[in-house]
Amino acid sequence: MLGQLIYDRLEDAATHSLPGPGVTRLFLSDEHRAVTPLIRDWMTKAGLTSEIDAAGNIVGRDQKALDGAPTLIMGSHQDTVVSGGKYDGMLGVALSIAVIEQLNKSGIDLPFGIEIVAFGDEEGTRFQSTLVGSRALAGKHDPKSLEATDDKGISVADALRAFGCRPEDIAGLKRDKANVLGFIETHIEQGPVLEKRDLPVGVVTALTGIERHRIRIQGKASHAGTTPMNDRHDALVAAADVIHQVEGICSMTDGMVGVVGKIEVSPNAVNVIPDHVDLTIELRAPERIVRVNGRGQILSALPNIATNRRVEISADLTYEAEGVPCANWIMDGLGQAIGEQGIEPFRLFSGAGHDGLAMHDLCDIGMLFVRCRDGLSHHPDEAVTPEDIDVAARVLIDFLQMVGPIKGISGT
Amino acid sequence: MLGQLIYDRLEDAATHSLPGPGVTRLFLSDEHRAVTPLIRDWMTKAGLTSEIDAAGNIVGRDQKALDGAPTLIMGSHQDTVVSGGKYDGMLGVALSIAVIEQLNKSGIDLPFGIEIVAFGDEEGTRFQSTLVGSRALAGKHDPKSLEATDDKGISVADALRAFGCRPEDIAGLKRDKANVLGFIETHIEQGPVLEKRDLPVGVVTALTGIERHRIRIQGKASHAGTTPMNDRHDALVAAADVIHQVEGICSMTDGMVGVVGKIEVSPNAVNVIPDHVDLTIELRAPERIVRVNGRGQILSALPNIATNRRVEISADLTYEAEGVPCANWIMDGLGQAIGEQGIEPFRLFSGAGHDGLAMHDLCDIGMLFVRCRDGLSHHPDEAVTPEDIDVAARVLIDFLQMVGPIKGISGT
Repeated sequence: MLGQLIYDRLEDAATHSLPGPGVTRLFLSDEHRAVTPLIRDWMTKAGLTSEIDAAGNIVGRDQKALDGAPTLIMGSHQDTVVSGGKYDGMLGVALSIAVIEQLNKSGIDLPFGIEIVAFGDEEGTRFQSTLVGSRALAGKHDPKSLEATDDKGISVADALRAFGCRPEDIAGLKRDKANVLGFIETHIEQGPVLEKRDLPVGVVTALTGIERHRIRIQGKASHAGTTPMNDRHDALVAAADVIHQVEGICSMTDGMVGVVGKIEVSPNAVNVIPDHVDLTIELRAPERIVRVNGRGQILSALPNIATNRRVEISADLTYEAEGVPCANWIMDGLGQAIGEQGIEPFRLFSGAGHDGLAMHDLCDIGMLFVRCRDGLSHHPDEAVTPEDIDVAARVLIDFLQMVGPIKGISGT
Repeated sequence: MLGQLIYDRLEDAATHSLPGPGVTRLFLSDEHRAVTPLIRDWMTKAGLTSEIDAAGNIVGRDQKALDGAPTLIMGSHQDTVVSGGKYDGMLGVALSIAVIEQLNKSGIDLPFGIEIVAFGDEEGTRFQSTLVGSRALAGKHDPKSLEATDDKGISVADALRAFGCRPEDIAGLKRDKANVLGFIETHIEQGPVLEKRDLPVGVVTALTGIERHRIRIQGKASHAGTTPMNDRHDALVAAADVIHQVEGICSMTDGMVGVVGKIEVSPNAVNVIPDHVDLTIELRAPERIVRVNGRGQILSALPNIATNRRVEISADLTYEAEGVPCANWIMDGLGQAIGEQGIEPFRLFSGAGHDGLAMHDLCDIGMLFVRCRDGLSHHPDEAVTPEDIDVAARVLIDFLQMVGPIKGISGT
């Protein structure tokens, strides 16, 4: 079973980790270096010629890709969070390679080139920057991102050089748009939706847009014993209203999620009416209009909360990243391939960010999600079954054979 | 105007303070020592014989008290919080003394003894213990309270000795219950009720009972992007429910206030569903049954919140102090005296603790509250007008002349 081979390879890859629970393999670390020969070996077995590029990506190409034919890029990222799992990222690397190996073994000759990339950094755990590798391929490399430093003050540029890479060559990694058919990433869902629906895989419709707001609530500290209830300016009671507003609007809105994840209260004393609250609101929706409408409903409630609770509330947008849609032809093709396995071709959006956010600047993107146990990710207990991996592999094998006809590429 | 005299004396007393905003005069400090001659001088002018007792209280007695006649105790505390005001505590000291001086000047001879006490510590700012002075008079001295230390590691016992006091004599300060008519304290309200009602003074009905609970909410951390709204275990959303429950029940319950003053969220990150929340609930009510009923309404809602939000909630009672009622004869007498000033004899409970909490173990207690600006206390801007002080003084003068008849003491 191809799924078991891939599962076993992921066990091997997981041994390249810092000690401690789960897998910790940061960008340009010793563990990154150590896992590289393993991945290149898989690539070799799949008939791919491999290299480490200037951005620390491990890149494998078949002969057609090397010859400049129209090329489909596949892959995912090699890095993990601290004490992460075995599948977030590496599943999409190992699976893409094994699928090509299987096609070769089956004597199936795709009429286009294949390039598989194990991006160096997607999690952004080590440095304050992220997606250096995929941005480079997309032609959106920002030299300033190389100045970001890790905890020890080592810059991305210095770490790249120590890894044997030439950061000055990163700009040259830009792929030719005209030559790229698309980017397909297989990834664990990192959520519970597929598991709840008892589905091994799902077609991603979009990568979510994200916005974050900082909310400041200014009440008035006073004696918790001597201030009557109707004469309080309790910033935390107003914050509870905001928390409920976010939860309520997001629960009522399809295609949007949101959370108040962080809250700081002052003076935060058992016997003092809370004076000041700072909290964060994060909203995610793949469709901009949904997110903007939801934001409007939440923010427009703040003046009423302020009036009712006799506090002042201000809101600042601190971060905003637009969502990215997946290409219809990829969604349709993946859906058809799933259907051919006798499985419902379920579609869902990705609430997390992925390399596709960067690759979308280069080409059409698409993602195949694989069920993970309890929706758990970024955790040592992250788990995927060989059976589900096998379904994903078969879906990809079918899909890859549809790409030629879909894109009107008739053969070699 | 007697109010102006008292106001001016309070200005004098406020000069005995550590530098910095407001008044800082801690128990057994150099400032406590420095203000002592001033208070004793006021006492002398009022015809009282003064001493510093073994607990650091400044005590003045008239001849009848010295002779062992039934005695009414008056007074308040000399100490302040850090950067406190001029009136919290010292108002009741200066006012009680000035009232006796005025009665003497007017040739009015009360048929009972007068003892005025400037308690050393009520705020508990310097040491972890509090009410050492009033507990001593009430016969509830706990020798262990002398082991409490300040920031520099100095114990109450050592500080008392350095102040010239003999801590081993504190137990002997216990007053004879049979000989004490009651304890009357005049104090600023430390809240906005009198100001809102445009009243200079009010009669205190009780000192509040207080209880505190620690609430722990265990949700489940998960990815804020990939976890659907209906599959979350958001500890902070549940905490918002608890905050609203406390606010709602207390707002609907006469004679009870409550607050969630302190909250800690984990992991407290913008993009992670809150996993765990610890928060405090404090409830205050002068009547035990009101507080217990209110507590019941709040705590009985927790299981429903836990079910609705799919979290676990536990509650622990961490502190409970029973309230203390004021004596009817004192409330009635003070009310009558207020009415004779043409002022509504408004009654209110004290949401803060006072020396009466300890003195209640010795005798009937009563308190007269004086309006303070904006309800502000424990703050350099604490403010009282000479006019309001004058009203309070006239009320006390009237009241003191009622005590003999009320208590059936006909004269010397």
